[in-house]
Amino acid sequence: MKILVAQSGGPTAVINASLSGVVKRAKMLKHEIIGGLYGIEGILESRLVNLKMQNEEMRLLEKTPGSYLGSCRYNLPEPPNQIYDSFFDVINANKIDAFLYIGGNDSMDSVAKISMEAKRRKLPLLAGGIPKTIDNDLVKTDHCPGFPSAAKFLNVVASEFVIDSNAYSKVSICVMEIMGRDSGWLTASIKLSEEIVNGLNVITYIPEKAVTETQILDEVSTKKGMLLVAVSEGIKNTDGKYFSSIEIKDAFGHPKLGGAGEKVANIIEKIGKVKFVNPSFLQRSASHIVSEVDVKEAVMVGMDAVNALEKGKNAFFVSIERNDGNVYSSKTKIISIEGIGNKIKTVPADFDDLMLKAYVRPLIGKMPKYARRKI
Amino acid sequence: MKILVAQSGGPTAVINASLSGVVKRAKMLKHEIIGGLYGIEGILESRLVNLKMQNEEMRLLEKTPGSYLGSCRYNLPEPPNQIYDSFFDVINANKIDAFLYIGGNDSMDSVAKISMEAKRRKLPLLAGGIPKTIDNDLVKTDHCPGFPSAAKFLNVVASEFVIDSNAYSKVSICVMEIMGRDSGWLTASIKLSEEIVNGLNVITYIPEKAVTETQILDEVSTKKGMLLVAVSEGIKNTDGKYFSSIEIKDAFGHPKLGGAGEKVANIIEKIGKVKFVNPSFLQRSASHIVSEVDVKEAVMVGMDAVNALEKGKNAFFVSIERNDGNVYSSKTKIISIEGIGNKIKTVPADFDDLMLKAYVRPLIGKMPKYARRKI
Repeated sequence: MKILVAQSGGPTAVINASLSGVVKRAKMLKHEIIGGLYGIEGILESRLVNLKMQNEEMRLLEKTPGSYLGSCRYNLPEPPNQIYDSFFDVINANKIDAFLYIGGNDSMDSVAKISMEAKRRKLPLLAGGIPKTIDNDLVKTDHCPGFPSAAKFLNVVASEFVIDSNAYSKVSICVMEIMGRDSGWLTASIKLSEEIVNGLNVITYIPEKAVTETQILDEVSTKKGMLLVAVSEGIKNTDGKYFSSIEIKDAFGHPKLGGAGEKVANIIEKIGKVKFVNPSFLQRSASHIVSEVDVKEAVMVGMDAVNALEKGKNAFFVSIERNDGNVYSSKTKIISIEGIGNKIKTVPADFDDLMLKAYVRPLIGKMPKYARRKI
Repeated sequence: MKILVAQSGGPTAVINASLSGVVKRAKMLKHEIIGGLYGIEGILESRLVNLKMQNEEMRLLEKTPGSYLGSCRYNLPEPPNQIYDSFFDVINANKIDAFLYIGGNDSMDSVAKISMEAKRRKLPLLAGGIPKTIDNDLVKTDHCPGFPSAAKFLNVVASEFVIDSNAYSKVSICVMEIMGRDSGWLTASIKLSEEIVNGLNVITYIPEKAVTETQILDEVSTKKGMLLVAVSEGIKNTDGKYFSSIEIKDAFGHPKLGGAGEKVANIIEKIGKVKFVNPSFLQRSASHIVSEVDVKEAVMVGMDAVNALEKGKNAFFVSIERNDGNVYSSKTKIISIEGIGNKIKTVPADFDDLMLKAYVRPLIGKMPKYARRKI
């Protein structure tokens, strides 16, 4: 079989581990493996490479940030459309038997559209989607590769940040902006820092729950001691307006640009000293501190995508299921790609702190331990 | 001997490793060791603790962020001043024989003032200063503990950031703001990322060298391929004005800066797509990715401060000297505290890229290696 694999959307710390899984399993099964550069955008321009990787290169790949094959933010239009003629011209010209796409919501939608269109054209192409997103917002999977590593990095640096900021006798309120336009999984995961730093309170503001300036001030005022406020970039107020679109002024009365996190920091400054950090792109590229569970699962979804092709599966999505039992373990499940793309799994309203921590803890793995003064 | 130790100024990832060195050596030599909480500010309020730490706690301490004893930003006034009466009241009441202060420029000035004042009062107190600053701007030492770890964190995340940002077919210019009010050592150190990421060009803007908007645009325009622009928070234009639009004062009356990086990003946006990150406090607290050389040396300066006291030294500073030879090694040198405080070691104008990289490389140690596509 000749398999074409490509990567799409924002990179994660482990998107290349999934690529490594695909290449490794394809090599084992003696399939030919072709890389599409810059996702579907590059494939449409016939930018294909032969992926003859050596073992050392594949080992490095598992901890390499970015997208090894290059990525794109390209949404396939609704078929019928002549774009599909171009796409299948490349597929046919290169005698591709199967297409695997590693990506998020939009990419899974592309996989579904390609499957549908191949069927309509009576072409034998098999297609499958491999999940990837730090946002953790793909439906029908326990979680998404990329999320555990981003959550690990953020919990570790959040812990370091609050300990650093509270070195002085006067308490500082720490505010951190976290990625996540439509879902608050990553922001919510910062709650776990309470288990790393003794006496820390974490307040999280997520897109799923509208919040007002008054509510923020009330909630922050009630907390004593060390406080970290984690703010999703996509939070809205009760009028449905993004916090990032609210205009704020700096100390000189000049309008100050900034995202949701800076807006919340500005609000809290009315009642206390605030320290603000926006880890931005660092949170999705931190391959130096990946979660080992995440790397393992990212490789696993890649390998099992090839296994599914081997069984003749088509129009599939590699989902992750958490096994029962006290010790964390997981397995993949090959499900239909239908109903995956363009859906968003949000944090349920009844998902409380205990449930959240139990969900995130095993994905992150071993957390740092610090010396702490008793008084 | 009864030794009082305290920490001052902004924490680093290894300021607690120096504390561990002090405690460890004092224990070995059967000295009593007292911690002063929140630096001189807390000592003036008699906030002292007995540091009876177990080995496990001391091991953790070496990789604990923040300041274990608490810190302050407090500058002792010029003597004579009644503040010194209060200070020596605490010293005498607690029968303290020696005082060690772990800190930066301002703290070394405090050590010098305390020594001078003890001498004037004919009190037998010994005093010594232990270097600490990510800014690397203390004079008469090869480098300062804290700098190597901050430089390591920044080079690693800068590499991850540029690889992540260049996943797309369209090139992004990456801009990063780096701490350093008066000296550009940390910003300059980012040059080393060129050795981690193949084909990367790093441009650095440091406080030592004024720069105009036109110069920035000209320099950025000439670079091809992957580009990272590292900007010190304290850069100025040729009129001597800070790039940052926000100018507020910190506790010492120094201008407190923010926004220089954003300003440069804004300028560069005129000629290309820009991605911006400000790691802010994360760069000084990243104990999860300390440089092993840094931890070792931070412990060493702490231990050798106690060794100096043991020899009856007074009014001293523990400086680090780089040994000759191809393999990096270093030793401490006990020098006079006179002329250390409030001086700033800047990056010399003739310190070129090769010299800079040779200076920083061994301090950081092993750097990550990534898989990279050939085409």
